[in-house]
Amino acid sequence: MTASLSRDQELRHRAEAVIPGGMYGHQSVALLPDDYPQFFSHGEGAYLWDVDGRKYLDLMCAYGPQLLGYAHEEIDAAAVQQMRRGDPLTGPTELMVTLAERMTDMVKHAQWAMFCKNGTDATTMALVTARAHTGRKTVVLAKGAYHGAAPWCTPRLSGTTPEDRANQIFCTYNDVASLEAAVASAGSDLAAIFAAPFKHDAFADQALPAAAYARRARELCDQHGALLVVDDVRGGLRIARDCSWSAVGVQPDLSSWGKCIANGHPISALLGSEKARDAAASIFVTGSFWYAASPMAAALVTLRLVAQTDYLERIERLGGKLRSGLHERASASGFGLRQTGPVQMPLFLFDEDPDLRFGFFWCSEMLKRGVYVHPWHNMFLSGAMTDHDIDAALDAASGAFAVMKTKRAMIKPAQKLQAFFAPKVPNAAASRADHPDGRPPP
Amino acid sequence: MTASLSRDQELRHRAEAVIPGGMYGHQSVALLPDDYPQFFSHGEGAYLWDVDGRKYLDLMCAYGPQLLGYAHEEIDAAAVQQMRRGDPLTGPTELMVTLAERMTDMVKHAQWAMFCKNGTDATTMALVTARAHTGRKTVVLAKGAYHGAAPWCTPRLSGTTPEDRANQIFCTYNDVASLEAAVASAGSDLAAIFAAPFKHDAFADQALPAAAYARRARELCDQHGALLVVDDVRGGLRIARDCSWSAVGVQPDLSSWGKCIANGHPISALLGSEKARDAAASIFVTGSFWYAASPMAAALVTLRLVAQTDYLERIERLGGKLRSGLHERASASGFGLRQTGPVQMPLFLFDEDPDLRFGFFWCSEMLKRGVYVHPWHNMFLSGAMTDHDIDAALDAASGAFAVMKTKRAMIKPAQKLQAFFAPKVPNAAASRADHPDGRPPP
Repeated sequence: MTASLSRDQELRHRAEAVIPGGMYGHQSVALLPDDYPQFFSHGEGAYLWDVDGRKYLDLMCAYGPQLLGYAHEEIDAAAVQQMRRGDPLTGPTELMVTLAERMTDMVKHAQWAMFCKNGTDATTMALVTARAHTGRKTVVLAKGAYHGAAPWCTPRLSGTTPEDRANQIFCTYNDVASLEAAVASAGSDLAAIFAAPFKHDAFADQALPAAAYARRARELCDQHGALLVVDDVRGGLRIARDCSWSAVGVQPDLSSWGKCIANGHPISALLGSEKARDAAASIFVTGSFWYAASPMAAALVTLRLVAQTDYLERIERLGGKLRSGLHERASASGFGLRQTGPVQMPLFLFDEDPDLRFGFFWCSEMLKRGVYVHPWHNMFLSGAMTDHDIDAALDAASGAFAVMKTKRAMIKPAQKLQAFFAPKVPNAAASRADHPDGRPPP
Repeated sequence: MTASLSRDQELRHRAEAVIPGGMYGHQSVALLPDDYPQFFSHGEGAYLWDVDGRKYLDLMCAYGPQLLGYAHEEIDAAAVQQMRRGDPLTGPTELMVTLAERMTDMVKHAQWAMFCKNGTDATTMALVTARAHTGRKTVVLAKGAYHGAAPWCTPRLSGTTPEDRANQIFCTYNDVASLEAAVASAGSDLAAIFAAPFKHDAFADQALPAAAYARRARELCDQHGALLVVDDVRGGLRIARDCSWSAVGVQPDLSSWGKCIANGHPISALLGSEKARDAAASIFVTGSFWYAASPMAAALVTLRLVAQTDYLERIERLGGKLRSGLHERASASGFGLRQTGPVQMPLFLFDEDPDLRFGFFWCSEMLKRGVYVHPWHNMFLSGAMTDHDIDAALDAASGAFAVMKTKRAMIKPAQKLQAFFAPKVPNAAASRADHPDGRPPP
């Protein structure tokens, strides 16, 4: 250990000793540019500080949970007040009922709610509920869609078995014919169609849901007595103040929620329609902390702010401003920047950039200028962001594009991504096949 | 709604409308005596208040999480202080590394740690890690042992598929010959042996681990290149300041932790030995809130108190006092009360009580006297309990046994349990078969 190591490097060394691979899961920076920090210090509003004291406008919002900004005083105060009453207790508090009432009031299709901790809990409960409801096993999912990290859905196959992935048929998102074909091959065994609210796979352009696709999914479920599941863990509350598919006029039977429903406090939920109630009551799911009241108190304040403030209109407006501003700056510098998905949950990919060398370079330049952007995962705007923040991000982008234009010919692909993106390396091909949604190993 | 409804009844009515079955999981009171409250107000130290203002000495400790008592000021203050710094962030904080260091220092077999939220996350990660390490699929588990509520392990089959339960072979806890037979039938495909730290199945007498059984499990894993997993989610930190099987001199390769490692703050963990590190690094597991620092801050204080205080000796001593005091009182009243398992995690079952009528009656009488005990699930003592509390519990028991003795001949079985316990009812037989560990539907 020398004095020249950054705090982040010191922590990485320590982590290497006591955490497998140094870090795991979606918050590992193993596949981010080398200058991206692994460890952070604190957050406030729209801003994030790393352990070396650098401040960033954070366009990841903790990968979604921070809907209204970091360290939100009113929300956190509610959580703390409830925590002081003891948490968890030997049973639930009144807040669990109130929160179920609030969520079923807010989400049109929902008549009941069950609370859990992880987004994966909520998607797994949807799967199990659909199977209990139908007495069938087969589920249709879109290829590459992320629905969590349990053995049945984790994007990396290591340690999973073929049996974990049994009874799954894949279609292509937004492709009606492929959806119909998948349903047809389920025969009389269709339990559910799973849908992401929009196509938000990593490493690939995002796509809004085609209304025809969503409607056809609804029809097919009705025709086959199967349940339609919208996995709103990632998109929920950033697309609508209702289930995200309400934007295309389609109501599911089950919807999974998580991430931001308590602005980062740990709680997720499965919501369901009347039809699925008995099945939901028949399954046994639980967790040590699922009945804890503190995150429920935080959720109640979050949902009140969701109902009473213009956060949604604000992140849409700011997202639109960011998108058009980046488009101008990219074009002016001669780069094709594909900005896809909802403006408030953007993904940026460069044209002619199969190995992400431009994406990595640009993101590093943005980071240097105090803006944390992600080269291959969708980002998230928060209600704590202002016009000033977007202006600052656009100023940073002007600088980043200018440097990039000058150095264009010299930009090399990141070594850490080569194994993942080069199909000629045998291991990489295997590793690619291992990740149907394109999410790479950490 | 009339004025005569209790607050608990009002909340049950409201819950019935918005929560499937009115409540789900281990905190549903569907199979507890009718006078047991479903909803609680707050907790403090060793005490719990229900929504109707009744105060109880709580021998459940939130089903385990409250190791040092409800609303622990020092632990909660650390959580709050960290929460004020924003939680979760876009990456982990230094606390994650420090906590991994602290846990691997504390638990002898452990060289690394991964943090998650649910106990089920930690057991599932153990399963996946063992399969990744060995490239095999079969796991040996003890019949009736609870390892969580995911499709592969939930005690109720509704909504699960045979594939979810594939590659599992069951043995009888503490029965060496049965363990050997299970391992033999795994052939060359043994990935892991799972073990509870002691037999803590619901509805059945508990049993401490036989040293010969634990040692044989270790030997068999070594002979077959499989991993030994101790699921310490429930028992951890109440048996030892190390993995619970250290008490019988056996070190596993993987151990799962949860519930009380942060005194109720939501965090669980998988710990592993060097041998399993690469496999653990190869799996993809994650969750939106897994990197949140606030529960890690709470865990660090909890683990310091675990190391520096005599909480463990205290709960063992108080548990011994409770056990001998109850034995005296039960015997004096002519009841055979079987108290099994570690004294600090006791289960009470009455002799000649196949339908739990005595258990239910006695628990209700204890509840009336301000002591919350459970008729069929193991209980938990906490470091917040005092001699005074145990004396009060024993006074309550004297009263409860006295009433019970008087009414002995008139005590009827609880109607809600009849379907579950009467094998002559066809549905009940099915339902019983549905619950290999005897955990009933909520």
